[in-house]
Order: sequence, then structure tokens, then C-alpha cells
Amino acid sequence: MIADHWQTYLVTQASISAGRSTLEIVREAIAGGIDVVQLREKETDTRWRYELGLELRELTAEAGVDLIVNDRVDIAEAIDADGVHVGQTDLPVAVARELLGPDAIVGCSASTLEEARAAEADGADYLGVGTIYGTSSKDVEAYKDGVGPERVADIADAVSIPVVGIGGVTADNAAPVVDAGAVGVAVVSEITAADDPRAATEALAEAVETGMTDDGEQQDR
Amino acid sequence: MIADHWQTYLVTQASISAGRSTLEIVREAIAGGIDVVQLREKETDTRWRYELGLELRELTAEAGVDLIVNDRVDIAEAIDADGVHVGQTDLPVAVARELLGPDAIVGCSASTLEEARAAEADGADYLGVGTIYGTSSKDVEAYKDGVGPERVADIADAVSIPVVGIGGVTADNAAPVVDAGAVGVAVVSEITAADDPRAATEALAEAVETGMTDDGEQQDR
Repeated sequence: MIADHWQTYLVTQASISAGRSTLEIVREAIAGGIDVVQLREKETDTRWRYELGLELRELTAEAGVDLIVNDRVDIAEAIDADGVHVGQTDLPVAVARELLGPDAIVGCSASTLEEARAAEADGADYLGVGTIYGTSSKDVEAYKDGVGPERVADIADAVSIPVVGIGGVTADNAAPVVDAGAVGVAVVSEITAADDPRAATEALAEAVETGMTDDGEQQDR
Repeated sequence: MIADHWQTYLVTQASISAGRSTLEIVREAIAGGIDVVQLREKETDTRWRYELGLELRELTAEAGVDLIVNDRVDIAEAIDADGVHVGQTDLPVAVARELLGPDAIVGCSASTLEEARAAEADGADYLGVGTIYGTSSKDVEAYKDGVGPERVADIADAVSIPVVGIGGVTADNAAPVVDAGAVGVAVVSEITAADDPRAATEALAEAVETGMTDDGEQQDR
């Protein structure tokens, strides 16, 4: 199934990379074994994102890593990304699917059971569930409190598409998210702001492996 | 030729409409004879723009008015708009063309002769040239001073695609822009912030007609 091998998922954001380029962060993350990269960079203009996207496509394709574009279906098409990730205030999943066709990956953010079921019904290939622990990468008051691994468990039980936990996830708290039923975790700052993004990716992957073997349930999903 | 009948061109921006909906402004502009509407609304989220776009598409299609989407090729496709308008920091003209196909209208902003020639070479169907007189609708220092009708004349002489003047254009200063070689003028606040958007559209159309008959050159272009 699409996305079911996504144990570690990097969402890009140049503004917190301590002066390093997104390309450099992604290169390190790939060296550390990242499974999928999402081009987000919401604060930048379209041309900048498109040009970065072309470079990321080359880099990820060489490494066999999936590349997803946040929100912008047109940029995803233009750079030949593997798919798109839409939030609840982006284009509807069904519209993204129609524009990109049946072979593209369409993911959707869901913070509630209702959103998760709707996204699956509309044809989403995977869900980004969160904010798990609250996060500083979005300056939105509503994201201060996380939904916790419990919400991941509720949603993973209710849908048959893969769930990735996002928001405030670190190597220290990733295991419970996966133990709750997520196939993996998505992070921004844990890798992007790390002193050593490669080591941070490896540590995250290890935490996910730990979560998968915490009990026997995960393997059955 | 595509866009060569665009004498009056409205660019939407809800934030300056004095509490009236964009739909209401566009309805009035259509009643006043607007030729083309561009969905911009850069400050809003994707879903909001998409949903407004569906409503604008219905309204403009009924009236036989062209509908263009700013920047977002995906929204243009999703709402079946007539085309897209890209700025110098949006997707390149050639990329927008490839995504939308040969029948769609692709317009491009140009403030210099170099940008204008490049856009035409890349396949643009029309140019938005400006800022003509400087404008308050963009909070960018660089837009404070306008390029004037002189730049319109230079560009209209250099390219064979239609030129629309934009930026600080009002019914009082539109005629020289058209006299300089523009097929028409694009406005944000002149219609959107007007007490009577319908009357403002009619006044603008009249000013454009005046500019077209100021001398005999315009008809020959």
C-alpha cells in the first residue's frame, strides 16, 4: 500500500534551519534514511518553492525517496512530485485527486475522527494526524495542545489507510505514536533545527522501530 | 486574439471591499460591463479561494465574462477558469502553459521591456504592465513609484500580445494608458473600494473608450 513504509517523514521549513539550505537538510536526512520529504515552505513565494522543488525532485529521485508537495497541486505536477499533502483549508482531497490522477499520492491532515473518515472516503492515500504533542513550528494558539497518541489509536482503528503522526514529535516521544498505530512520524524541527540532521533522522528511525516492536499489534495493521 | 477585447479588468481583493463580499463586487462590476475578472485574494487560504472561485465561475460564465486566477494554476484548473495570471515570482509562464494546455489564457506581469519580451517568448497571451501610477493595494515599497504610460508605450511597441495597464489606475487617469497602447486597464481598488462598483466600472469603461479615440494609433495595433 502507498505510504505504508513511511516510518520517517520530513516536512521542510527553511526558516528554522539555522542558515542551512533546505537542500542541505534534505541531503542529510536522506543520508540518515528518511523515507519521504514534504516540500512545504509556506512562507516563500511560488517561484522559490518551484525551483527548490526541482532540486528536491532530483535529490529524492536519486535516493528512491518519495517527494510530496504541501497544498500546491500545481507545483506537485510541475516538478513531477509523487503527490500532494492537503490540509483542511487547502483544496479538497477529491479535487486534488482529480487534478493529479489515480497514481499520485494524496495525503490529508486530520485532527479528528470525522476529518479522518471524510478524507479516506474522499480518496486520501494516507493521513497526517496531529498535532500530537503540540508544536512550535506553527504559530497558532490552537496547536498548543496536542491530540496525543490516543487520537492516533482512535483514527488508525477507524480507517484502513496509513496514518502518520505529526506535531511536536521527537526521537524521545515517537515510539508511543507508532505503538498507537501510526506507520511512522512526520517532523519539521526535530530534523531541520537539529545540530546534526542526519543523526537526528537516524535517531528518529530508531525510535519508530522501537515503537513498532513495543507490542505485537503494530505488525498486524 | 485572446484578451484583445479586455478594456476593463477587475482584480479581486476582499480586504478592501468595505465589508461587501467579493461576489457582490463582481456582480456589480459585471452589471457595469467588466470584461474580465481575476481571482487574486492572496491573503486568504486555498480552500476559501477555491470555493469563491467556483461561485465566480458560475457568475462570470453566465455573463460571458472571462475569469482568470492569480498565481494558482491548480485552482484555475479546479474551477475551470479561462486561465491564469502569473507574476515574476510565480510559476514560469512556460510551466503554467504546459500544465494548462494550449487553449488556456496565460497572462504575465511585466514592469520592464526585458520581462515583457521574455513573457511573450515563453508563450504569454497578454501582459499586465505596471505599476502604472503606483498603488496602495500592495504594501511594497518598490511599487510606490509607477512606470507611467510611457512604459506601456515602449512595451506595446515591442510585443505583439495585448497589454493591460495596472496599478493606481482610475477613471481619471486611464485614458493615457490606453492611448499609449494598452487594450485596457486592470484595477483593484477603483472598483472594489468604490461606493458604487457598478458606476465605477462604467466610468472606467468610458475612460478607456476616450483613450482609444484620443488619436488614430490605437485602432491600428
